Amino acid sequence: MAAGNLLIAQGGGPTAVINCSLVGVIDEAKRLKAKGPRKIIGALRSIDGLIEEDLIDLGKESGSLLKKIYNTPGAALGSCRRKMQEEDYGRILEVFKKYDVRYFLYNGGNGSMYTAHKINKLAVETGYELNVIGIPKTIDNDLAHTDHTPGFGSAAKFIAAATREIGWDIKSLPTPVSIIETPGRNAGWLAAASILAKQEDGDAPNFIYLPERKLKLDSFFADVDSSYSKYGRAVIVVCEGLTDESGQYLGAVKSEASRDGFGRGLPGGAAAFLAEKVNEVLKLRARYEKPGLGARASVRYISEVDQKEAYIVGKTAVQLALKGTSGVMVTLERQKEKKYICKTGTVVLESVAIAEKLIPADFINEEGNNVTEAFIEYCRPLIGKPIASFPSLASHKLNMNNSLKQSRVTSAKVS
Amino acid sequence: MAAGNLLIAQGGGPTAVINCSLVGVIDEAKRLKAKGPRKIIGALRSIDGLIEEDLIDLGKESGSLLKKIYNTPGAALGSCRRKMQEEDYGRILEVFKKYDVRYFLYNGGNGSMYTAHKINKLAVETGYELNVIGIPKTIDNDLAHTDHTPGFGSAAKFIAAATREIGWDIKSLPTPVSIIETPGRNAGWLAAASILAKQEDGDAPNFIYLPERKLKLDSFFADVDSSYSKYGRAVIVVCEGLTDESGQYLGAVKSEASRDGFGRGLPGGAAAFLAEKVNEVLKLRARYEKPGLGARASVRYISEVDQKEAYIVGKTAVQLALKGTSGVMVTLERQKEKKYICKTGTVVLESVAIAEKLIPADFINEEGNNVTEAFIEYCRPLIGKPIASFPSLASHKLNMNNSLKQSRVTSAKVS
Repeated sequence: MAAGNLLIAQGGGPTAVINCSLVGVIDEAKRLKAKGPRKIIGALRSIDGLIEEDLIDLGKESGSLLKKIYNTPGAALGSCRRKMQEEDYGRILEVFKKYDVRYFLYNGGNGSMYTAHKINKLAVETGYELNVIGIPKTIDNDLAHTDHTPGFGSAAKFIAAATREIGWDIKSLPTPVSIIETPGRNAGWLAAASILAKQEDGDAPNFIYLPERKLKLDSFFADVDSSYSKYGRAVIVVCEGLTDESGQYLGAVKSEASRDGFGRGLPGGAAAFLAEKVNEVLKLRARYEKPGLGARASVRYISEVDQKEAYIVGKTAVQLALKGTSGVMVTLERQKEKKYICKTGTVVLESVAIAEKLIPADFINEEGNNVTEAFIEYCRPLIGKPIASFPSLASHKLNMNNSLKQSRVTSAKVS
Repeated sequence: MAAGNLLIAQGGGPTAVINCSLVGVIDEAKRLKAKGPRKIIGALRSIDGLIEEDLIDLGKESGSLLKKIYNTPGAALGSCRRKMQEEDYGRILEVFKKYDVRYFLYNGGNGSMYTAHKINKLAVETGYELNVIGIPKTIDNDLAHTDHTPGFGSAAKFIAAATREIGWDIKSLPTPVSIIETPGRNAGWLAAASILAKQEDGDAPNFIYLPERKLKLDSFFADVDSSYSKYGRAVIVVCEGLTDESGQYLGAVKSEASRDGFGRGLPGGAAAFLAEKVNEVLKLRARYEKPGLGARASVRYISEVDQKEAYIVGKTAVQLALKGTSGVMVTLERQKEKKYICKTGTVVLESVAIAEKLIPADFINEEGNNVTEAFIEYCRPLIGKPIASFPSLASHKLNMNNSLKQSRVTSAKVS
C-alpha cells in the first residue's frame, strides 16, 4: 500500500457528537503519523466540497480549538444533501488521485455508507489503491449490524430529559392531553427512548407510538382516554414518521417541495395532527411539542458514553485504514458482561448501506403502544449518567388540632 | 395586626424558577418567625386546594429537600386552571378565618394578581385583617409595572440557546427554511429573546415575527426569500400568538375544546402553518420546531440572575406582609447604573391585574420583522451568563504546491 493522504468527510444530518468522531480521526492520524498518512484532509460540505475540491488541512487545526470543536454541535466540516449521480463517483476518484488520497473515511448513516461502498467498489475495479472506512453516525439508531449508532445516546438523553421536564410541568398544572413528537422516519428508536423519563406509574410518557406499528386511531383515542380518566392527564410520545393504517405519514407537509420519492409528504406533523384530532373527537384540550432538531443539536444533554464511543469509532477507523482494511464500517459490539461495555468491530459497507434497523418486535409491547423492559435495558446505558430525577415536597398535612388552635388563642391575646 | 399564619399558593403556568420564590418565602418566614407568622401553609393545587382545604405545613419540609425543590421545574405546590366564580372569594376568606391566615402570598401572572386583588378587597370590605402580597411570575414577561418577571430570564435563555443550537446545525447542513415557534399569546417577549442566539451576520434568527405586529404574508415570504437567497437558509422565529391581518391566530387548533372566550382557537400552530405555506408558495423545503413547554420546564438553561431574583421577590413578599403592607405585588426595578442591578419595589395589585405588557414600539424594528438594539440591551442581562458560543474550524486551505507534490514523489518511491 502506498503511504498517502487521508481524507475525512461528514455526511447526512449532524448529531451532538459527530465532531467527536472527527477529533478522534485527527488525533489518531497524528499519533500514527510515522506510518502515514502525511496529510489529514477535510472535505468541506461533504461530497459537494469533495467534488469541488473545497478541501482543508486538518493537521493545521490547533489542539485547543479541536477541544472546543469536540463539544460543538453541527457538522464542523459541513454536510450536504446531494443526490449522488453515477458520474460523481468517478469524479471523486479523480480528486483522490490528484491529492494522493489513499484513506477515505466517511462519517454518516446508511446513505453515506452506500456512497462509501460505491467509491470503494470503483477504486477496486479501476485498480486505485484506496482504503475506505465508514464511521457510523445517526441519531435515528437505524444502522444495521451495530449495537447502536454514535449520536443516538445523546439524542435519546435529550428526548428522555425533555419528556421528564415537560411531564413534570404538566403533572403540576394538568393539560388534559399533551403530545410530544420526536425525530425518526421509519424507525422509532428516539420515541422509544422517552420511556427513560418515567419514574413512577402515571408519569410521562403514558403511551408511546412507533412507526414500526401503523396507528389505529380508535385504539389511540381509547388509550388517551384511559390515561386521562386515570391520571387527569395523558402525555403521549409519537414518532414523526408515524403512519395511518394506509401507510401515509400523519400530518405530513404534503406540498411538492417536500414530497419524497414515493410521493409521500415530509414527515413532521404527527403531533399537531393528533392534537387536533383529540380536540375534535375526545373534546379534550390537547397541545403538542416538537423539539425537533434540538434532539441532535443540543449540547446540554450529551451522553458521556455516546461522546466517548463517537471518539473511539473515529480512532478505530484510522487504525483499520492504516492496516489496509477497506470496504467496512466500524461497528459497536455490546459485550455480554453484566456491566455495559462495547467493543468495536466491523461490517462490510454494502450490508449497512442496504439495510435499515427498525425496532425489533421484542422491544415493543403487544398493544403496540409502549416499549418493553428489554428495550429499557438496551437503551439505559447509552444515555450515560441518568437524567435528573425531580423530588416532590414531603407535603405534611396541616394539623389543625394543636398548634393552630393554640395560635388562635395567642393571636387573640396579641390583637 | 394580629399575628397569624401565612399561606402561599402558586397560580397559573409554572416557570423554571417558580419554586425559587416558594423557597424564598419559606426561608424568610422561618427567619422572621419571632415576629410571626407561626405557620407557613402551602395550598396544594392553588385556589382549588385552598377552597378544598388541601393544605400542607411547609414549615415541616426539610432544608435539604427544599434545596432540591429550588432546582426543580413545575409548581411544587401544584397549580390549577380554575375559572374563579364570585362565591369563590367568600369561600377563600372563610378558609383563611378557619386557619387564621393573616398573610396571603400569591405567586402568579396577571390572572392571579386579579384574584389576589379581589381577595384583598373583600377582606377590607368585611373587616378581616389580612395582608395580601403578589409575587410576580411568568415566562411571558407580560406583567406591567415591573422591569421584567421572574421566569422570563430562564425561558429566554432556553429559547436563545435552542435557536443557536438549531441554527448552528442548519448552518452545517442547510435546510432552506426552518421555523421555530416560541410560547407567548399576545406578547412576543420570548420570540424576541431569540435574538441573543445571533453571533454573526447570517446566523439564526434571520427574522423574528411578534404578535405585536399582525403578519403580512407577502412581506413574510419576501423576507424568507431574501434570507434564503443571501445565505442559502432562513431560520425564522415566530411567536405562537402570531395573527394574520384579520387578527386570527395562525394555525390555531380551532376545535371547540380549545376555543377561547373570543371564539379563537388555542394558539400553537403558527410555525406548522407557515412551514406548509412556504412549501406551497415559495416551493422551498421548510420544517418547523416547537420546543413549547420545554421553555418553562427545562432546568438546563436556568438563568442564575433569574433564579436569584425569583428567590428575592419571595423573601421580599414576606417582609412586606409582615410590615403590614397589603394589596401590592412585588416588582423588579432596574437601576440606572452601568452594571445591571435590580431592586424590588411594589405596585398595587389592581394595576397589574388589568394590564398586559406588550413589547414597546422602540424594541421592534420598523419593518416589524426583528427587534432593535435597545431590546438586546434590555434582555441580555436577564439570561445571566451568556449562552455557549460555538467555534468553527480554522479551515486552513489545503496547499497543493509543496507538501502534496513532495508527498507524491515520496509515495512513488514507497510503492
